[in-house]
Amino acid sequence: MAVKLPEGIAAAGLHCGIKAAKPDLGALVARRPLAWAGCFTRNAAAAAPVRWSRALAGRPVRAVVVNSGNANACTGRQGERAVREVAAAAAAQLGCAPEEVLVSSTGVIGEPLPHGAIVAALPRLFASLGPDAEPFARAIMTTDSHPKLAQAGAGEARLAGIAKGAAMVAPSMATMLAFICTDADLPGPELTAALRAAVDRTFNRICIDACESTNDSVYLLSTRAAAADRPAFEAALEGVCAALAEQIVRDAEGGTRVVRLSVEGAADEAQARALARAVASSDLWRAAVHGADANWGRILSALGAVERTLDLGAVELDIAGVTLFARGEPQPGRAQAAAGMAGDFEVRVRIGPGRGCATLLMTDLSPEYVTLNAFGTT
Amino acid sequence: MAVKLPEGIAAAGLHCGIKAAKPDLGALVARRPLAWAGCFTRNAAAAAPVRWSRALAGRPVRAVVVNSGNANACTGRQGERAVREVAAAAAAQLGCAPEEVLVSSTGVIGEPLPHGAIVAALPRLFASLGPDAEPFARAIMTTDSHPKLAQAGAGEARLAGIAKGAAMVAPSMATMLAFICTDADLPGPELTAALRAAVDRTFNRICIDACESTNDSVYLLSTRAAAADRPAFEAALEGVCAALAEQIVRDAEGGTRVVRLSVEGAADEAQARALARAVASSDLWRAAVHGADANWGRILSALGAVERTLDLGAVELDIAGVTLFARGEPQPGRAQAAAGMAGDFEVRVRIGPGRGCATLLMTDLSPEYVTLNAFGTT
Repeated sequence: MAVKLPEGIAAAGLHCGIKAAKPDLGALVARRPLAWAGCFTRNAAAAAPVRWSRALAGRPVRAVVVNSGNANACTGRQGERAVREVAAAAAAQLGCAPEEVLVSSTGVIGEPLPHGAIVAALPRLFASLGPDAEPFARAIMTTDSHPKLAQAGAGEARLAGIAKGAAMVAPSMATMLAFICTDADLPGPELTAALRAAVDRTFNRICIDACESTNDSVYLLSTRAAAADRPAFEAALEGVCAALAEQIVRDAEGGTRVVRLSVEGAADEAQARALARAVASSDLWRAAVHGADANWGRILSALGAVERTLDLGAVELDIAGVTLFARGEPQPGRAQAAAGMAGDFEVRVRIGPGRGCATLLMTDLSPEYVTLNAFGTT
Repeated sequence: MAVKLPEGIAAAGLHCGIKAAKPDLGALVARRPLAWAGCFTRNAAAAAPVRWSRALAGRPVRAVVVNSGNANACTGRQGERAVREVAAAAAAQLGCAPEEVLVSSTGVIGEPLPHGAIVAALPRLFASLGPDAEPFARAIMTTDSHPKLAQAGAGEARLAGIAKGAAMVAPSMATMLAFICTDADLPGPELTAALRAAVDRTFNRICIDACESTNDSVYLLSTRAAAADRPAFEAALEGVCAALAEQIVRDAEGGTRVVRLSVEGAADEAQARALARAVASSDLWRAAVHGADANWGRILSALGAVERTLDLGAVELDIAGVTLFARGEPQPGRAQAAAGMAGDFEVRVRIGPGRGCATLLMTDLSPEYVTLNAFGTT
């Protein structure tokens, strides 16, 4: 799918030398200042670029410079200097202030960012800017197996989104790197409100390995050139975020299938989300998903560990459309449910008469995930 | 190590048919009623035998009947009936009341317990009772690779402990099955207080996979035949619990090494424990442990996800005796630390000037853990 950026925003990506051979540096650059909104990790070990960009909230920006292969997190003063130098070098070439350049990084934590390589490659990077989002999408990949793109329209306005995922993906904040470009004419505060709502219902509803990142960032950038109806824009934004979030889960490190997990009948949405996350975080249930084993007891034990007053008599649990537990009693059908787990499938847990519900996309835990993350600092 | 039970308590174990071939039924039987204390899982999906035994608190008991291969959890009314019938059959043969028989189970969740096989095997089981704890220790194993036993003396009193572990081991309550027999002459409330304190400092300080079980139970059973000095007894009890807890971590499913993880300088012990658990629950850090990769960034991101006001400038982090992060800055030595991770090693994190500290034993996440738990309901 060729995803075209809105008029006035251009993208580029190339190899600058952080990784051995693959693209590792990308930029989004606008002709005129962009309104923008950002959702960032709440991790106390937030990376230097996250702290830099977060501090620019409210100011229009001209560019985002993103590197993969190094998170520039937990890198101390050296890491802060590296961000400032990258922003200053980009600003000098674009003819703007350093504070008009957002910076984002993803990759290994705790290694010094080789920012000299980035600064040296910026002229080449900016010389290759164009309307196609894909070179940028490729440059921000880490162990992602393919670029992640999505687009939508809302009246006259267009949205083009780019994301990367892989691992260290947990749903308690803006998750991983995503960049959504639009021309919708909405002011910063409205972009922020729309982005927070969309992120809360999309990126915050996925879980790969329950590990929260130091670098999670979702950006929404707007040229404000096109008239936009706010409800239509919000729906389109949520659609783009949902498409990118699902692509992230589908391309999880070592993941072989996607499980749509719903918890219903909770006291409120917060309880439903907490319970869904507990199930999605259970290594034992995730291993059972990998083996297509309808081991529903691992779901109930995960729920019971979080909600200590859970009434088993009120719990109803379906896997792949087969009810395996109801009214306090196990039900036959384990083999039939297991057959339905061969590909993507749904898990539905109703825990009581409440109106709180939440749906989350999760994936399996495979030996490959462990191998990928055991050998070689990533 | 031959672990002898205190005079007046005998043990047995055999194969009754729940598993294909391995021992799956054990008992501890006393000549006279025993004082006892128990610590049980707080999981809302607590198994039928846990609910049965928990309800017997305060009454003296004559026996514990334990099966492996089936957890009798989430088994509804059938599961409750199964426990009652096992207790009644054992009581009839021992000449006591069913309410003098504790029952414990471990294995797959949600499958009906074949209690007929247990009842049929009880005469043979009780006929084989003897002073050696090992046949019982073998009968309660699931995927454990060897029986887990420990003993200690406290003045005239003796303690003999037996445990099983493997997986679904998380440190928020009494963990897994453990049985400690003693002759210390202490009344029930003192046994309870001593057991709670010891469990809190031993079994509750281990983490294999962050998955809390429906069947965790630790029992302390006493003939009260020997004079006991309470402080000496408490120290001996903690020693036995610590030895069993460490054996459980050392024999974790797929585990290849044991990490002693200390969090120091926290505001209080509760914060230190929460942070230690977050690190021990991180799949990414656990995978790095497996690969002997000194990926300390995964430790900081796990801490920062839980304690959002963590001050990185105050954090000091050592792996295998090598300081890798201090005063907000990464430190050289990753390769040296990695070399120290080839076997068991220590991780020490100091997060500030507080006096709260906690130590926890954790293990690695290996492809074998995933394979063991992916294929075949266990």
